[in-house]
Amino acid sequence: MAANGQSLEGVYAYLVSPLSGDGRVNRSVMERLVDHLVAHGVQGLSPLGSTGEVAYLTEGQRRAVVEATIEAARGRVPVIPGVEAFSTHAAIAQAQDFRAMGADGLILILNTYFPLTPAAAAEFYRAVAAAVDCPVGLYFNPRFVGGGLSIDLLERLQDVPNIVFIKEASGNTGLLLSVRNRFGDRFRIFSASAHIPLLVLMLGGVGWMGGPVCLLPEESRRLVDLGRSGRFAEAWPLQERLWELNRVFQQYNLAACIKAGLTLQGFEVGPPLPPQPPLPAAAWDEIARVLGLGR
Amino acid sequence: MAANGQSLEGVYAYLVSPLSGDGRVNRSVMERLVDHLVAHGVQGLSPLGSTGEVAYLTEGQRRAVVEATIEAARGRVPVIPGVEAFSTHAAIAQAQDFRAMGADGLILILNTYFPLTPAAAAEFYRAVAAAVDCPVGLYFNPRFVGGGLSIDLLERLQDVPNIVFIKEASGNTGLLLSVRNRFGDRFRIFSASAHIPLLVLMLGGVGWMGGPVCLLPEESRRLVDLGRSGRFAEAWPLQERLWELNRVFQQYNLAACIKAGLTLQGFEVGPPLPPQPPLPAAAWDEIARVLGLGR
Amino acid sequence: MAANGQSLEGVYAYLVSPLSGDGRVNRSVMERLVDHLVAHGVQGLSPLGSTGEVAYLTEGQRRAVVEATIEAARGRVPVIPGVEAFSTHAAIAQAQDFRAMGADGLILILNTYFPLTPAAAAEFYRAVAAAVDCPVGLYFNPRFVGGGLSIDLLERLQDVPNIVFIKEASGNTGLLLSVRNRFGDRFRIFSASAHIPLLVLMLGGVGWMGGPVCLLPEESRRLVDLGRSGRFAEAWPLQERLWELNRVFQQYNLAACIKAGLTLQGFEVGPPLPPQPPLPAAAWDEIARVLGLGR
Amino acid sequence: MAANGQSLEGVYAYLVSPLSGDGRVNRSVMERLVDHLVAHGVQGLSPLGSTGEVAYLTEGQRRAVVEATIEAARGRVPVIPGVEAFSTHAAIAQAQDFRAMGADGLILILNTYFPLTPAAAAEFYRAVAAAVDCPVGLYFNPRFVGGGLSIDLLERLQDVPNIVFIKEASGNTGLLLSVRNRFGDRFRIFSASAHIPLLVLMLGGVGWMGGPVCLLPEESRRLVDLGRSGRFAEAWPLQERLWELNRVFQQYNLAACIKAGLTLQGFEVGPPLPPQPPLPAAAWDEIARVLGLGR
Repeated sequence: MAANGQSLEGVYAYLVSPLSGDGRVNRSVMERLVDHLVAHGVQGLSPLGSTGEVAYLTEGQRRAVVEATIEAARGRVPVIPGVEAFSTHAAIAQAQDFRAMGADGLILILNTYFPLTPAAAAEFYRAVAAAVDCPVGLYFNPRFVGGGLSIDLLERLQDVPNIVFIKEASGNTGLLLSVRNRFGDRFRIFSASAHIPLLVLMLGGVGWMGGPVCLLPEESRRLVDLGRSGRFAEAWPLQERLWELNRVFQQYNLAACIKAGLTLQGFEVGPPLPPQPPLPAAAWDEIARVLGLGR
Repeated sequence: MAANGQSLEGVYAYLVSPLSGDGRVNRSVMERLVDHLVAHGVQGLSPLGSTGEVAYLTEGQRRAVVEATIEAARGRVPVIPGVEAFSTHAAIAQAQDFRAMGADGLILILNTYFPLTPAAAAEFYRAVAAAVDCPVGLYFNPRFVGGGLSIDLLERLQDVPNIVFIKEASGNTGLLLSVRNRFGDRFRIFSASAHIPLLVLMLGGVGWMGGPVCLLPEESRRLVDLGRSGRFAEAWPLQERLWELNRVFQQYNLAACIKAGLTLQGFEVGPPLPPQPPLPAAAWDEIARVLGLGR
Repeated sequence: MAANGQSLEGVYAYLVSPLSGDGRVNRSVMERLVDHLVAHGVQGLSPLGSTGEVAYLTEGQRRAVVEATIEAARGRVPVIPGVEAFSTHAAIAQAQDFRAMGADGLILILNTYFPLTPAAAAEFYRAVAAAVDCPVGLYFNPRFVGGGLSIDLLERLQDVPNIVFIKEASGNTGLLLSVRNRFGDRFRIFSASAHIPLLVLMLGGVGWMGGPVCLLPEESRRLVDLGRSGRFAEAWPLQERLWELNRVFQQYNLAACIKAGLTLQGFEVGPPLPPQPPLPAAAWDEIARVLGLGR
Repeated sequence: MAANGQSLEGVYAYLVSPLSGDGRVNRSVMERLVDHLVAHGVQGLSPLGSTGEVAYLTEGQRRAVVEATIEAARGRVPVIPGVEAFSTHAAIAQAQDFRAMGADGLILILNTYFPLTPAAAAEFYRAVAAAVDCPVGLYFNPRFVGGGLSIDLLERLQDVPNIVFIKEASGNTGLLLSVRNRFGDRFRIFSASAHIPLLVLMLGGVGWMGGPVCLLPEESRRLVDLGRSGRFAEAWPLQERLWELNRVFQQYNLAACIKAGLTLQGFEVGPPLPPQPPLPAAAWDEIARVLGLGR
């Protein structure tokens, strides 16, 4: 299935990277997990994001994760992997590689070592988008992206036709409204999990891409469906309940928490990748509790 | 009028401090401005906040601003001045002084020099609240408050009966939802202008306190009224229009922009206090434009 | 004694502010402390800096501290109080007041609420310096000063004749060397305690102004004397010993540590001002240890 | 040549990565550059650091750079490549690979995505050091390393025998003195270029590893020789002259500046890797000027 920009909407799971002890991708766990997510209403899959611990994976592991995801999806939902790099050259190589493997779209994650101006960051996004023939989104995370999301940056990228969406992880909802006010529907907005998805939908967002979707796919789908059809009052209690996950996860490490939750649900996705430490017992208990699992 | 915690709600104007060239408070401008704001639906007044350039005022000027505000309000709406200090002792002195002058409530602004733990910050808030017999709110601004808002801090303050509301200026809406989820109605939430007021109302906020209210009191009142009665869809276009002010003000200096806008509207509140520089001509033009004033 | 720029050199004690429980300055403790410091070789006194908890003092307390210091100094050494303010107006008032009281020079501490450009910060320094007829120094602390020290800022202030020295507290020695390389002797440099004084002397500094000088005045004087006469190898073991104080103090709160050390030495200067918490017992023990005091 | 910890001292060049337009390592330029550096007194080579734009290189390019450096060095001086990774697994793979290729030692650069405690960072360093049989150094750069250098971290690593040196790039000289005071000679200290090398030598440092060494190898060697033999007064004017490079480079981008300088000196090392922008003409002029080259 080849996605165009318009079909990119709804609820996407930010996938974990299930690795065996020897560093190989565990394809059978990936298959079971993807089947489970699709069966419970997830509308797209995004491997190799923060939840996927992308920065911790080798080039080979990244390829294997994308391959396993596309295979497991069997065309039922779009697969939009993350392209994470410091260099334009590496990003283009990854992007073309993933596209050739069948990715329906890509999310660009620009990592920075030496700081970049918005002009230089725009050149990166422009060059990578030009190197592929699929819809592309931009992921902004103030923890590592050079300069982050700004009106200035998006103005420089308006004319790049296949840059179709953004996803911003600072939690600053006002910035998204400024983007909407300035660009209207030019850049579709996905809520990241640092935001309250329902509020992002209220201000015109088209969906939610997040790690917690892996853990509560059905509730996440219902939240997004209600929000996209304007039934905010109905959705609000569900949003309050889902937000409790964020509070717990923020105390620890996002990827580690999603992996723990999936393990508790029976998916053997393994521990977080070192040097990330294993979660303490108290975290496991708290995650079990918010997921409504006995432990 | 003595406010209790319950009456603290709706739309409050964060007042500028209109000073003459000699540093004296211009009482006639204050009177005209307050009459104008009350006539256009403002439900409360908060002098000595960020918009009031509180940190730039001497002890004497602060007293004079509070006195002028209370006199101008003539009991029509509550007056809730800011208490800004590094030391507990100075905060208590200001708080008792303003209360004796007739303030209906207080907003505590804890400035920090040496960093503070949440435990030490809680002792500050507790001691100041205990020294007065009126409702008190806490103002959090990551630019200067020690550690800012946290669940930990509020847990330490739950038992202080007259700490009744909070106002947070990081723009991080999720933090407010975490507070709601944890404390329910225990701490009432006012939107600061760094937030999108409509979304804060949606998640249970009771009102909006902001500098921009000075410039568009009627629209601000309508926004808050619509939001508080759950008519979000109706309110949204108004919110989009009002947010444009934020975008413009963020490029410059908040107090300077509010003062410029009021000057354009015929209130001679004077320039920002040095060393804040006067606004450049381009800013005046942009402010006139977003306020719909010819210039 | 009226200091000119040239006599500002050597070792200066950054004084604590000894307050009684009722908030009054304890003049007899101040006298004993100043006598002790002068007798042990201290060459100047600077009240109302970080160590003096200047931000925590009211206008009245600041005046009382300056008065008590000048009286206690009895003209034996220069007294250079800190002028700490957000507003130009307040800084000028303090500066003129302290000068009228007999201060030999002043250190300007520009606090910031709304951020400032170097151009705006320069206008602040220029205006305050122009309002007094004594030598003035600039204190830079990245924790609160707008933009901090920069070559750009100093270029704007080269022509202000009574701005004669700087004191920088980021610990970034390279910045001081850049200043030396660009301005030579135009701006005299004092080491702050965040720097290693001996290294600052090596790169052309004229002295050391610091809180730890209060605790080890004799050793501090010897260090500065050796450094200023180029006997670095001889001074180095002494510097290593003195630096141990920094390590201990950095774990806690600077003013609280200096106050504790002086209390241990028999000067009843009182606890740190709330909301700064009292030091834990472990800190007292460690301070006693580094000062070589039994406890 | 197999280095032991003791032979790691003196002046090391942080090498650029000379790439051709097609992304291949330009071996002939590398050879000429290394011959030139060794002939002018450089005592060791460190490819794949900040100057080497390590984060911008693929796994394959990193191998090629190390191979080219070792070949060009021909055993005349030690080669100590950087191992840069987010994951422990990737770091071990690189470390073992470079060691097998003949590296004499390694510098560990721990990049972070999710934040790490000192305990978790220590596990990373310990695991990588245990996987190789050569001396290892730790590189701390506040821009990206989890938590940076701390006494706590080093205490956890004291018992790892082949962790022999540190290099810290915050410019905070005091932290190095605290390390010396606490650990004596246990961890050898190299000056990074953010520090003033002469001062680091004064406080017991064993050498200087820096990008600017590439541009002024002879002066850098002389500086380090003078500093290591205690002739500080003699060395100081040279240090002042060399520091001027830092001031210029800080205005732009370190790797880009070193590459520009080498290009001006006749070594065709190429432009900085995208998305780093090419240097503006003014930067080229200023670099030519500080290098004493006509242009």
